[in-house]
Amino acid sequence: PSNKKLLILPGDGIGPEVMREVRRVIDWMDRRRMVSFDIDEGIVGGASIDALGTPCSDETVAKAKAADAVLFGSVGGPKWDSLPFEQRPELGILRLRKDLGLFANLRPALVMDPLVEASSLKPEIVRGVDIMVVRESTGGVYFGEPRGVETLPDGKRRGFDTDVYHEDEIARVARVAFDLARKRRNKVTSVEKANVMQSGRLWRAVVGEVHKAEYPDVQLENMYADNCAMQLCSRPKQFDVILGNNLFGDVLSDLAAALTGSLGMLPSATLGAVDPTTGKRHALYEPIHGSAPDIAGKGVANPLAQVLSFAMLLRWSFGMEEDALLLETAVGKVLAGGLRTADIMQPGMARVGTSVMGEAVVREL
Amino acid sequence: PSNKKLLILPGDGIGPEVMREVRRVIDWMDRRRMVSFDIDEGIVGGASIDALGTPCSDETVAKAKAADAVLFGSVGGPKWDSLPFEQRPELGILRLRKDLGLFANLRPALVMDPLVEASSLKPEIVRGVDIMVVRESTGGVYFGEPRGVETLPDGKRRGFDTDVYHEDEIARVARVAFDLARKRRNKVTSVEKANVMQSGRLWRAVVGEVHKAEYPDVQLENMYADNCAMQLCSRPKQFDVILGNNLFGDVLSDLAAALTGSLGMLPSATLGAVDPTTGKRHALYEPIHGSAPDIAGKGVANPLAQVLSFAMLLRWSFGMEEDALLLETAVGKVLAGGLRTADIMQPGMARVGTSVMGEAVVREL
Ligand SMILES: CC(C)[C@H](C(=O)O)[C@@H](O)C(=O)O
Ligand SMILES: CC(C)[C@H](C(=O)O)[C@@H](O)C(=O)O
Repeated sequence: PSNKKLLILPGDGIGPEVMREVRRVIDWMDRRRMVSFDIDEGIVGGASIDALGTPCSDETVAKAKAADAVLFGSVGGPKWDSLPFEQRPELGILRLRKDLGLFANLRPALVMDPLVEASSLKPEIVRGVDIMVVRESTGGVYFGEPRGVETLPDGKRRGFDTDVYHEDEIARVARVAFDLARKRRNKVTSVEKANVMQSGRLWRAVVGEVHKAEYPDVQLENMYADNCAMQLCSRPKQFDVILGNNLFGDVLSDLAAALTGSLGMLPSATLGAVDPTTGKRHALYEPIHGSAPDIAGKGVANPLAQVLSFAMLLRWSFGMEEDALLLETAVGKVLAGGLRTADIMQPGMARVGTSVMGEAVVREL
Repeated sequence: PSNKKLLILPGDGIGPEVMREVRRVIDWMDRRRMVSFDIDEGIVGGASIDALGTPCSDETVAKAKAADAVLFGSVGGPKWDSLPFEQRPELGILRLRKDLGLFANLRPALVMDPLVEASSLKPEIVRGVDIMVVRESTGGVYFGEPRGVETLPDGKRRGFDTDVYHEDEIARVARVAFDLARKRRNKVTSVEKANVMQSGRLWRAVVGEVHKAEYPDVQLENMYADNCAMQLCSRPKQFDVILGNNLFGDVLSDLAAALTGSLGMLPSATLGAVDPTTGKRHALYEPIHGSAPDIAGKGVANPLAQVLSFAMLLRWSFGMEEDALLLETAVGKVLAGGLRTADIMQPGMARVGTSVMGEAVVREL
């Protein structure tokens, strides 16, 4: 049996069309190199709501658990916007994170040299930016109880959520950040609002303890979330690894991605704990861009973030460093050659659609 | 008795030195125009901790309640960083917001033409940006109960906060945003995570109801907080008024301020409810920049945000529109004349310190 069991979940919006380009890459690998992936496909998000009445079925969860890695597209769209809270497409990805224990969401924000001009920031501010945001992704206000909207005796409503962290949840994601920093520029910026939030106070304390006991060689900086947003915008190069809880990690990783100016280029990974007996860990890979319903089905979406998510998957879940690099190099060459999808279009470049971009990557391979 | 009772709270860090420049402006007004301000001064933050053992004494609260307007500097600094949560300088400003019922924190992010180049964003992206962030400032996760760090039976810690909103809290701050939009470009972007938070779900619902019932003429857009951070960075000109809860408002207003590149220029106001019998409302004005302990006492801080906060105060609390405009025009002229403090320094300009900048404003007056 293959040890490369891959589950593909295209999801909604542009998900299916960018995933098609990854399929081409996989086909090429199949033909050329005879890597035997064992590929399954499943449904999630709006597509799953339409077919099964739930954003993520038990069957999809079971398939994901059985796989060595999951390649995810994106979920959501206006079609499902009026559904009640418990039935929305977004809950599909939240359930996968939770049920597979995918607690560390890794979101690189990398400015590739040919794309420096695509940023809204000045070239001298963003050239060379290489940030990794490590976002806790199974805890905090996303899952904390109690939560709800209640009606008070006088008929008025009150909505509430609980932002809660156990020290072990903080410590394990902090370790992921410190480990990554050691392979990078050795600096972690841990972000919270320890000045106003109790969970933030614990966050800062625990990160400090893990640092002191296990990673004294890594530089640790604590920063308030509001200041971090500011600094990301004004001096992004100061950052190496940014560590944040589920909510701050969500907002700050999107900001970090935006400042590269090439959202359609950015992959991400969400990792679970390493199983001590098998040495394996659950992992899900997805582009940072969402389902982009406004351009879905038009054939103009940038497939490179999905392709690069697959490269990350090859590297981290299948140990195929060489093939990952090959794929990343091919993407780099396609860009250097001047091809651009609409989202990263620059004067003097050649504007192409989703499939031409995908084909070009395969050709470079 | 004067109806212009002003309480001055310089606070910590650069607070006292930038406040000194406002005093010059007030002196000039006193001499020239014989406006009779009734001025009191008080202590808050670290200064108050040092003197009285508390970040905000009952006396300071009483003075603030008795005043028609409060001009606030900034609080905090490394000196007080190791104090326990309940004794930190930040609690000074939080207590003032809460005890005076200052629920609407108004934070303009305005790119002044002479300062376009100070931004880290490209000139064509930020020229003309004029955003007003309306942040709810007495509710949400800043004050919600229960909150704390508890030790579980097994000795492990758990930190938790409650993000909670009552519909009336949402409605009143939404009205402030809609009212402002009507005097501006008639658009409100309301920000939450209604896709994952219950308080966010209520937020979106109530803002929609207030819009429909009372402000159908204003354009309302709902946006997730992560997307808003992205959009602020890539296309800031799309925004007019941004409305958010205490936490999102904190982070996004700092981001909006940062993208102007001239944090040292930005004032803010925090307003309470209008008293139906007197027609008055409590109000506190402060620069967006913090206490900047790294440059405190060096005479290099930019006093203009504090001066412009005073202009806002004149306009909104004392109804002195003409004098506010006079002061703002003077600031504009000083900049057009080429004077710059270090934070907004640009090639070809004349670098000056705090007091030279303050004097220049008075000279222009
Ligand atoms: C789809 C949504 C629930 C999700 C989140 O907020 O986590 C998305 O914004 C993300 O960042 O993956
Ligand atoms: C000082 C701190 C408590 C405060 C806050 O988070 O509200 C500050 O960041 C602000 O935005 O005024």
